[in-house]
Amino acid sequence: MGAPSEADSRRQRFEHGMEVLTRVDGEGGQRVVDSLADISPELGHQVVAWGFGEIYDRPGLAPRDRQLVTLGMLTALGGCEPQLTVHVNAALNVGLSPREIVEALLHSAVYCGMPRALNATLTAKQVFAERGLLPVADD
Amino acid sequence: MGAPSEADSRRQRFEHGMEVLTRVDGEGGQRVVDSLADISPELGHQVVAWGFGEIYDRPGLAPRDRQLVTLGMLTALGGCEPQLTVHVNAALNVGLSPREIVEALLHSAVYCGMPRALNATLTAKQVFAERGLLPVADD
Amino acid sequence: MGAPSEADSRRQRFEHGMEVLTRVDGEGGQRVVDSLADISPELGHQVVAWGFGEIYDRPGLAPRDRQLVTLGMLTALGGCEPQLTVHVNAALNVGLSPREIVEALLHSAVYCGMPRALNATLTAKQVFAERGLLPVADD
Amino acid sequence: MGAPSEADSRRQRFEHGMEVLTRVDGEGGQRVVDSLADISPELGHQVVAWGFGEIYDRPGLAPRDRQLVTLGMLTALGGCEPQLTVHVNAALNVGLSPREIVEALLHSAVYCGMPRALNATLTAKQVFAERGLLPVADD
Amino acid sequence: MGAPSEADSRRQRFEHGMEVLTRVDGEGGQRVVDSLADISPELGHQVVAWGFGEIYDRPGLAPRDRQLVTLGMLTALGGCEPQLTVHVNAALNVGLSPREIVEALLHSAVYCGMPRALNATLTAKQVFAERGLLPVADD
Amino acid sequence: MGAPSEADSRRQRFEHGMEVLTRVDGEGGQRVVDSLADISPELGHQVVAWGFGEIYDRPGLAPRDRQLVTLGMLTALGGCEPQLTVHVNAALNVGLSPREIVEALLHSAVYCGMPRALNATLTAKQVFAERGLLPVADD
Repeated sequence: MGAPSEADSRRQRFEHGMEVLTRVDGEGGQRVVDSLADISPELGHQVVAWGFGEIYDRPGLAPRDRQLVTLGMLTALGGCEPQLTVHVNAALNVGLSPREIVEALLHSAVYCGMPRALNATLTAKQVFAERGLLPVADD
Repeated sequence: MGAPSEADSRRQRFEHGMEVLTRVDGEGGQRVVDSLADISPELGHQVVAWGFGEIYDRPGLAPRDRQLVTLGMLTALGGCEPQLTVHVNAALNVGLSPREIVEALLHSAVYCGMPRALNATLTAKQVFAERGLLPVADD
Repeated sequence: MGAPSEADSRRQRFEHGMEVLTRVDGEGGQRVVDSLADISPELGHQVVAWGFGEIYDRPGLAPRDRQLVTLGMLTALGGCEPQLTVHVNAALNVGLSPREIVEALLHSAVYCGMPRALNATLTAKQVFAERGLLPVADD
Repeated sequence: MGAPSEADSRRQRFEHGMEVLTRVDGEGGQRVVDSLADISPELGHQVVAWGFGEIYDRPGLAPRDRQLVTLGMLTALGGCEPQLTVHVNAALNVGLSPREIVEALLHSAVYCGMPRALNATLTAKQVFAERGLLPVADD
Repeated sequence: MGAPSEADSRRQRFEHGMEVLTRVDGEGGQRVVDSLADISPELGHQVVAWGFGEIYDRPGLAPRDRQLVTLGMLTALGGCEPQLTVHVNAALNVGLSPREIVEALLHSAVYCGMPRALNATLTAKQVFAERGLLPVADD
Repeated sequence: MGAPSEADSRRQRFEHGMEVLTRVDGEGGQRVVDSLADISPELGHQVVAWGFGEIYDRPGLAPRDRQLVTLGMLTALGGCEPQLTVHVNAALNVGLSPREIVEALLHSAVYCGMPRALNATLTAKQVFAERGLLPVADD
């Protein structure tokens, strides 16, 4: 039994990333990978093996905290509605409450301005609606 | 009869902002507030009470001039088509002519590049079409 | 026979730009110009006469290389899906292979992050699908 | 004793915001306000009274969590090194560890790309150096 | 005497643009052109001949109004401090008051968030200081 | 002789990436890694092992072409002057001529606007000056 080939190592890293991704995103992650299969399977591989397998899975920051950072980034970047949809779902999956998500997006108005905060909040609204989480209580 | 409660003050600020917003945006502003009612009423409150009631209403810059600055910002940010729709309407409501709006968006090509200028101009075109303002005369 | 009027010169620059644009973008460029006819013909003129006639046509960088730079910029800007559609087509027209385009967009993940790379790749996928170029082979 | 004047209410909101800001940012917040005194005291007022007094102080999201979102946004926006300096300090003040901050900025590479992650990390390095927090342990 | 050569037309367009630029920016524009002389004189030519000669000089929007749009765009883009310096000067040259400029940048907080508004305001402060315009009165 | 440990594989990937990086960036890459050593060695690892070892080294797009895409992205992002400095050097190292680089940055004016094109060109000027490549000839 020799050393694992490079292909083995590559496959293992993908499989590890897919475990992390499935834990976080449920089916949303697989759909992204599938959508890339005939155009850029390598991009699908890297999202999974690198983004999730190497970075997301690191122990220094809790999954819930990673989603808070991610919501902030996607809101600030703008034009990332598909990714926001995936990550609002992910945020709920790893333990953020609807209220915390809504507050994070309200908080973004201070740093990114109202248009980015509005677009992100209305994207979250669609996710919440699909998951039966509306209305979100406000103090 | 004691001092007004904090809730009174909060409601007054919202009502003042709504007066400003309605003067500028007509029904567009109310629709934004309504769309947030079951997800983030606080964001709706802040857009109105802060954005319009406190900032937009300040005397140091004319409403028409505020819309010029706003058109520039929304064009530069990109991905703000819903807000551009509201503010192209607002720009017409506070006295900018279709031609001035079109020139402002052409001017944006120099600073933001052609893609942002094109996207903003085609968004304005939809507003102008709804208001029967096409074609816009050009020299 | 007098000197050409300013209007002549302006028309000549537009016609020259349209030759460059048609060579690069095929019909896509004309559609952009047409869409601007009743709102901002001047923006259409400048895209053609300046963007293509003066800048794109300069000899110091090959058309193929200009498309590589352009794909990088449009991916990084975000929110430029209509322009990406035009320029993925243009990239194919001036000699970039589907594989090179896909690699350029994968490369963008390193500099712009996964969301921008994903959005650009899925936009390219639509162009490739329309031109019968799927699946793109990956090593 | 009548109702508080509008000026009273305005001052109270500023004072409340300054309490929140001082708790979070220490002296950094006061320096921002001071730097605006002769050009735009109103912007200083709004950063404090609105940003900190109204938004930051809301109960729905912990101060530590707000800093995670903020780090994500400032990294994604780019060109916000002065604000990142203030908020890396704030993040430490409200209980994020150097390691968590470093992980959040590493995580940002996936969503914003390497340049933004590098610039933010090197900005954090200066803050950590001033506070004697280098080297940060890595697994 | 035949028709003007293309080189004549090119030089005339540059000279016309330089007249517009000098009227607006004073010496700031010439410094930009000079800084490009040994690296990209063509970029200098295009800033002047196209940006100022063709776009800025169009009659459909007043110079003062163009500066309002420009201040909004440069603030929103971020990382454009050198250009903001030129255009805050230009804004003063074409008739905007310090107060109007400050209000425009305060207004930007609503649409771009506090960091962009702060950076732009502190850039304006340097211009105002050099021109002896501090403190700016606030209501 | 057992299979290589995960640590072995990780080190190999870093070493491979460093070979690619050194070929492209010369000493500039090592300086980035060194600057991260006491704050985020993992970010340094990922820039090298992932960015260069996995993505940059892929066969589907020539190194010279990758730099064209990269110049476009860094120009469009803004606020990436340190990375532009590294990659203008890299572009020269992998065979782009000064003229091609200057043309690519001029081309960026069409898509990103003049401020981004100016900032990138003046950053390139500093690199060219250090390497004795000024003036760059223009047609």
